[in-house]
Amino acid sequence: MKALVFDGQLQLKALPVPKPQPEEALIRVILAGICNTDLEITRGYMGFQGVLGHEFVGRVESCEDPAWVGKRVVGEINLPCRECRFCRAGLGNHCPFRAVLGILHKDGCFAEYLTLPIANLHAVPDAVPDEQAVFVEPLAAALEILEQVPVQNFQQCVVLGDGKLGQLIARALKPHCHNLVVVGKHENKLALLKEVGIETRSLVALTARLPAAEAKPDLVVEATGSPAGLSLALQLVRPTGTVVLKSTFHGQANLNLTPMVVDEVTLVGSRCGPFAKAIALLASGRLNLRPLLSEMMPLEKGVAAIARARDKTALKIILKE
Amino acid sequence: MKALVFDGQLQLKALPVPKPQPEEALIRVILAGICNTDLEITRGYMGFQGVLGHEFVGRVESCEDPAWVGKRVVGEINLPCRECRFCRAGLGNHCPFRAVLGILHKDGCFAEYLTLPIANLHAVPDAVPDEQAVFVEPLAAALEILEQVPVQNFQQCVVLGDGKLGQLIARALKPHCHNLVVVGKHENKLALLKEVGIETRSLVALTARLPAAEAKPDLVVEATGSPAGLSLALQLVRPTGTVVLKSTFHGQANLNLTPMVVDEVTLVGSRCGPFAKAIALLASGRLNLRPLLSEMMPLEKGVAAIARARDKTALKIILKE
Repeated sequence: MKALVFDGQLQLKALPVPKPQPEEALIRVILAGICNTDLEITRGYMGFQGVLGHEFVGRVESCEDPAWVGKRVVGEINLPCRECRFCRAGLGNHCPFRAVLGILHKDGCFAEYLTLPIANLHAVPDAVPDEQAVFVEPLAAALEILEQVPVQNFQQCVVLGDGKLGQLIARALKPHCHNLVVVGKHENKLALLKEVGIETRSLVALTARLPAAEAKPDLVVEATGSPAGLSLALQLVRPTGTVVLKSTFHGQANLNLTPMVVDEVTLVGSRCGPFAKAIALLASGRLNLRPLLSEMMPLEKGVAAIARARDKTALKIILKE
Repeated sequence: MKALVFDGQLQLKALPVPKPQPEEALIRVILAGICNTDLEITRGYMGFQGVLGHEFVGRVESCEDPAWVGKRVVGEINLPCRECRFCRAGLGNHCPFRAVLGILHKDGCFAEYLTLPIANLHAVPDAVPDEQAVFVEPLAAALEILEQVPVQNFQQCVVLGDGKLGQLIARALKPHCHNLVVVGKHENKLALLKEVGIETRSLVALTARLPAAEAKPDLVVEATGSPAGLSLALQLVRPTGTVVLKSTFHGQANLNLTPMVVDEVTLVGSRCGPFAKAIALLASGRLNLRPLLSEMMPLEKGVAAIARARDKTALKIILKE
């Protein structure tokens, strides 16, 4: 089968179709989404080598449980050991012995086929077309913020970043926020937010004149994908406020953390989220993510698709079989 | 009067006795404690120039309200505007227009006299001798952690740092923690903790072999005073755990924050705390802080006292009239 592999360099390879382990399903990929994490991996993040990709919608080709065969599915990306203290406490996403699809010790979904434990699968309702289902993984990550922070208790929320993740976060938080503003660099991306009734502000205007202390937001979600994002978030947030940190990137950030102590700010790291809630939200029809799809490219143009995803004017680039 | 001034260099100066503003008291200093923040100010922190010092016990010499005259007092260090949104919300410690004793726009207590608003004063009960009362400000800062984090909900707590603040934090948290370990570099300081029944571990032993994921603490309090402390705290804390950040220092920290996102760690900045609770704790007799007093030096030897406080084997250096 064709697969997009990073092994120090990025290339399309011919690989054997993977063999499912016991309790795993073999899944034929329908669509797969390119995430910033994939781009970071090609810069050395996690030291991962193998088939890239962790966002997908596919169809179960074979598995021990016949009820799953033929089902359209999305899949959780963490493969926990199911035995350790974290797994027993229901924190499998934080299992220290886990593999992670396309990120850690497990080949990903930028291929014709992937394998995943049946326990990781979620059936996709007919109401959710492929082009929306492929967003379930990053939408779940956006919804994770609602699991961690009582968003409705904050008076003013700012999302830093108008990219793929910032767009999803803004849409996920909007119904729960008293006031929400997304700050970004790209007019075309900010325009998409305005179209769904979300207030926006240009980064240039914001940094030219930071709000006075009394007008600062009490919740800032950092989703810029850049080390500078957290510095700005810490300058922007009100004393005793909360910053949610979503960006992961390869390398170190140089930060002055003293304002965080002086202002008693809380910083919350946030990663994977609830798939079932993301699927239910998409099935409800209240969220249309199609405008976030910039381009659909065939898997065999995977190298070019990754290059296209690096273009800052693009939003989601989708690979299809 | 004699005063220890930092104006680009540290020197003892003869200054006029300060004139209290309306609603302020003039206080004669009995004892004043040297804090790491004072040392950081001499390195450029906050850009402060003026009389150093914010930890003291003193006696009210004069003030509009005769009930206070002659009283032995300690004083809160934040001078809020009392009018802004933060002040109206009871967050005067975070008033953006505040002055801070010996740190920001207000001369401090390394002098024969200081002035402070009457509203900042707390009378010291007779049960608390001067040598304990001088610890009220930093003890309140230690107790602030209990205001911010439900310490009793964590299974294992580690305090990083065996210095002045680490010692106070460990003693403040001990009755509320299921398991508490203090990690430090100095045998003499760790020995003081052992004497009050607190478990200790050497930093060298810890970093030589970090605990396996399943044995990691779920609460880490960073009180090393060094930029490296937070990096270690983030390596040490369990996924989904909490790190309390107490250190303030001049300059930037170089950090890899991705593990904080991947592990969904919460980082809580923590500064000034409840004076009334600190005084009540000292009045209860349950805490003996005398062992933390390394040396008492006269104010006129203030420059030497600051040098002595920089010595890593010392704990609290106290200035007296």
